[in-house]
Amino acid sequence: MERDSAILLIAAPDREGLVYTVTDYIYRNSGNILHAEQHIDSSENIFFMRIEWDITNFKINQENILSSLEDMKQTWRMDISLYFSKVKTKTAVFVSKKDHCLHDVLYKTKNRELGIDISCIISNHEENRRLAQYYEIPFYLYPMFKDNKQEQERMQLELMKNMGIELIILARYMQILSPEFVTHYQNRIINVHHSFLPAFIGANPYKQAYEKGVKIIGSTAHYVTDDLDKGPIIAQEVIHVDHKDSLDDFICKGKELEKQVLTNAVKKHSEHKILEFQNKTVVFD
Amino acid sequence: MERDSAILLIAAPDREGLVYTVTDYIYRNSGNILHAEQHIDSSENIFFMRIEWDITNFKINQENILSSLEDMKQTWRMDISLYFSKVKTKTAVFVSKKDHCLHDVLYKTKNRELGIDISCIISNHEENRRLAQYYEIPFYLYPMFKDNKQEQERMQLELMKNMGIELIILARYMQILSPEFVTHYQNRIINVHHSFLPAFIGANPYKQAYEKGVKIIGSTAHYVTDDLDKGPIIAQEVIHVDHKDSLDDFICKGKELEKQVLTNAVKKHSEHKILEFQNKTVVFD
Amino acid sequence: MERDSAILLIAAPDREGLVYTVTDYIYRNSGNILHAEQHIDSSENIFFMRIEWDITNFKINQENILSSLEDMKQTWRMDISLYFSKVKTKTAVFVSKKDHCLHDVLYKTKNRELGIDISCIISNHEENRRLAQYYEIPFYLYPMFKDNKQEQERMQLELMKNMGIELIILARYMQILSPEFVTHYQNRIINVHHSFLPAFIGANPYKQAYEKGVKIIGSTAHYVTDDLDKGPIIAQEVIHVDHKDSLDDFICKGKELEKQVLTNAVKKHSEHKILEFQNKTVVFD
Amino acid sequence: MERDSAILLIAAPDREGLVYTVTDYIYRNSGNILHAEQHIDSSENIFFMRIEWDITNFKINQENILSSLEDMKQTWRMDISLYFSKVKTKTAVFVSKKDHCLHDVLYKTKNRELGIDISCIISNHEENRRLAQYYEIPFYLYPMFKDNKQEQERMQLELMKNMGIELIILARYMQILSPEFVTHYQNRIINVHHSFLPAFIGANPYKQAYEKGVKIIGSTAHYVTDDLDKGPIIAQEVIHVDHKDSLDDFICKGKELEKQVLTNAVKKHSEHKILEFQNKTVVFD
Repeated sequence: MERDSAILLIAAPDREGLVYTVTDYIYRNSGNILHAEQHIDSSENIFFMRIEWDITNFKINQENILSSLEDMKQTWRMDISLYFSKVKTKTAVFVSKKDHCLHDVLYKTKNRELGIDISCIISNHEENRRLAQYYEIPFYLYPMFKDNKQEQERMQLELMKNMGIELIILARYMQILSPEFVTHYQNRIINVHHSFLPAFIGANPYKQAYEKGVKIIGSTAHYVTDDLDKGPIIAQEVIHVDHKDSLDDFICKGKELEKQVLTNAVKKHSEHKILEFQNKTVVFD
Repeated sequence: MERDSAILLIAAPDREGLVYTVTDYIYRNSGNILHAEQHIDSSENIFFMRIEWDITNFKINQENILSSLEDMKQTWRMDISLYFSKVKTKTAVFVSKKDHCLHDVLYKTKNRELGIDISCIISNHEENRRLAQYYEIPFYLYPMFKDNKQEQERMQLELMKNMGIELIILARYMQILSPEFVTHYQNRIINVHHSFLPAFIGANPYKQAYEKGVKIIGSTAHYVTDDLDKGPIIAQEVIHVDHKDSLDDFICKGKELEKQVLTNAVKKHSEHKILEFQNKTVVFD
Repeated sequence: MERDSAILLIAAPDREGLVYTVTDYIYRNSGNILHAEQHIDSSENIFFMRIEWDITNFKINQENILSSLEDMKQTWRMDISLYFSKVKTKTAVFVSKKDHCLHDVLYKTKNRELGIDISCIISNHEENRRLAQYYEIPFYLYPMFKDNKQEQERMQLELMKNMGIELIILARYMQILSPEFVTHYQNRIINVHHSFLPAFIGANPYKQAYEKGVKIIGSTAHYVTDDLDKGPIIAQEVIHVDHKDSLDDFICKGKELEKQVLTNAVKKHSEHKILEFQNKTVVFD
Repeated sequence: MERDSAILLIAAPDREGLVYTVTDYIYRNSGNILHAEQHIDSSENIFFMRIEWDITNFKINQENILSSLEDMKQTWRMDISLYFSKVKTKTAVFVSKKDHCLHDVLYKTKNRELGIDISCIISNHEENRRLAQYYEIPFYLYPMFKDNKQEQERMQLELMKNMGIELIILARYMQILSPEFVTHYQNRIINVHHSFLPAFIGANPYKQAYEKGVKIIGSTAHYVTDDLDKGPIIAQEVIHVDHKDSLDDFICKGKELEKQVLTNAVKKHSEHKILEFQNKTVVFD
């Protein structure tokens, strides 16, 4: 866990020699590859790669790695993102009243199961302040009324900018973010929707599921886009239900799923294992 | 398995004394209760029951049981269905070209895992004749063209009437049954839809799922109603997929699910464990 | 949830008329049956039943119900236990240092997902005192050394007796209870073992599993008996692992399972849905 | 599916430059990498790799690839296996009376879901001859009596040698193979054991599971070694059971698992995705 490594996420038009080029770069500079995963989207012929290497003896300083890749990037028309295993993702957690997802995210962060650093908890309600205190995380209240949304979002964004927030977790945050807000954190806002998307989009998905008489309910973690509940899916989980289950049972069983998919998605994101492409995700193991 | 028992399926407005009344009837007539399950739909206050008792020493002859229940039925405003464990459900299997569900249904029927008797296989294509022969089941070909559907369905219905068919299994039958046809077999036609309904209704659900980028695909067995893919759901199963899975992989993984949900639903139906109510099902264990 | 009902758990030699007798008793005294489940162990011919009825208009006072059943009990040679839905099970939670199960039990108890009342947390370590305070539950420290086990257990038992404890949850309690201790709480101590029992009995089950190269790991909740890790199994859950998973990954994935099986088992116990028989359990839905 | 590719399976002591060396070889010879997966066993510091590349324009002829790798192999102390996507694995299926696994293997082979070519079915009983005929596969009967095992195995081996058999599937074959037999097909005999190994080794695992009162049953596909039921595990699957399930239900539910794990393991083997190491397997996605 405490390794000192660099991680490259690459997307590029597929061509012979791509893997060779990347591994050659790492080998020439004395990096030892720890993990390498690739995927080719055969319909669009796009090559995706995640490669992680030990930088203990790497000949290029961390701050110079990106510039040292510039030529390769141009030649192969790569999208490149670079991360370091020792740098945890600075994160803000948004929550309303329901606290099960917040509990799970806080607990697992504290136990180092998620590679994030929670800088703040932001809420439109008071209810979760005490929990934030227990975990010693700053808690910021931004109540939402009919007319103050734009102003509140502006202040939230400013706070997050000052804190250097890189990832937003919507842990059952019951407000719809404005398109302006979303623009600032593209593919960096993870929401949990309490249905097996694309089934039961919108409000009260458990109620919709209950009335339909489905035998399985689900939960979905996805990146937030302007299109409500339609952003790229990261993780989904399901559980069986039957006629004995009331709507309350659906909700209760669903809470376990919501926690699961949300923390799984956050873990993948913070390990830099997710690539987004045409509203779908590549999620490496 | 070889027990000699009677099974009652009951639906009635919930009232104090219902269970007592039924068990009293069985006890007074020297039946020994083998299984009893009940469910109360609390929103509509409807009571559902499945009760099975050993009739070896039952004082009322099989043919007189229904009439002996007439008073109870009136008094408690019950819907009643009566079945006997020794009578297997006479079944017709409809299939087009794809044979995985047909294979599974035939194999499990032969191995007595499903409590049905397959009287015939009906198809709009020749492909599965040889398989029918292997299992020694009569195979009837009803090719479907633009204009002959009404006539073909009429002949199918006549054939099934002559054979005393009680249950129709659509084992990947790629024709839409007419409302007239469905009327004759209400809650007695089981279809398998290759998606996790209500997601991806209609054609090419795997393709829809692939394009949406879901992380789980599913399959649904349901009773057929006039409303396409919207009949009461009996069973659902799902499996995880990821970016590595091509559309072909979706289809291949899905085939296993389709078999599973279809045979599970047929098993429940033939064991008389399903009650339908307001387009939902109670499926007893 | 807030219904006012009585629950009977019955075990008796199977005989014609058992269900009738019980339902007759309830009906005659103006009880309305809410749930009734039965099971017959066909090898031993034992009848098991759980029946729950609304006592709002029941003619017999709660304190007299047991005595009113005395004749029936004798005649049918029944084992009978009586519970009331409004009375929550008084519970003590034992824990050592690892806190994931404790977190889950406390959270779900507070959210009324488990029908228990936690009277105290007992630990051999200090670590979880702060968590106990957050949930406002008394925390008692009983450090365990080489020679003080007998004395500490005696004091624990005394404390629990004074508190009227009916159920003990071992939420990753790393001490083996003495047979004397277990005697006081037969079928009332629920332990979680971090393997798919009976595989990997004893210490370090995840390490054993890792070295064996299994592709699935599991977790088991069971009642504690004198025979270590061999008490009647209540619930089991599993998750897939593969070669990419390190021993740490096994442990991390396993924690989710441990929480799940433990809280599921506690829920079933507190809803009075478990009957034990010959070291196996009947767990009603 | 119909691609023309080569696949290398490599195991070697982990060293900087391994990935580079292999990709360099492929790139220099005009191969386009289709898939590359690697794994490092960190306890033993062994590097495992599966790499697949398009050989349409590869500069080295198929028959010369292995010799062209000789230097690399020596320098890096590699274990190397080379396969071609167009060459299907020649397979013999062994079966006794139970036919569910045989059905599934034959069906999926015919439907090209498994990358094998079934050359023959070998049995110690007559029962499955008709099924072999349906799929037009030669069926060989080798009855097993007290004293003829050595002789029968010798003849089976001769038959398989003549047919060029590379893989043996034990599709519920109820004979224990002699160590001599196993020697000829190390890591090339796949067996299905009807329990969640290492639980319930030996005879009647479902009966053992039933008597123990487990809540989950399983099935395991593994390579056969001299040590009965202890060879390296390839795949495992499980399903929930409860008190309502009889021993027959266990067996019936288990059959589905047995089919699943067996065909999954065969698929992985025939796609050359399995590496064995110290009685454990690396199974690439």
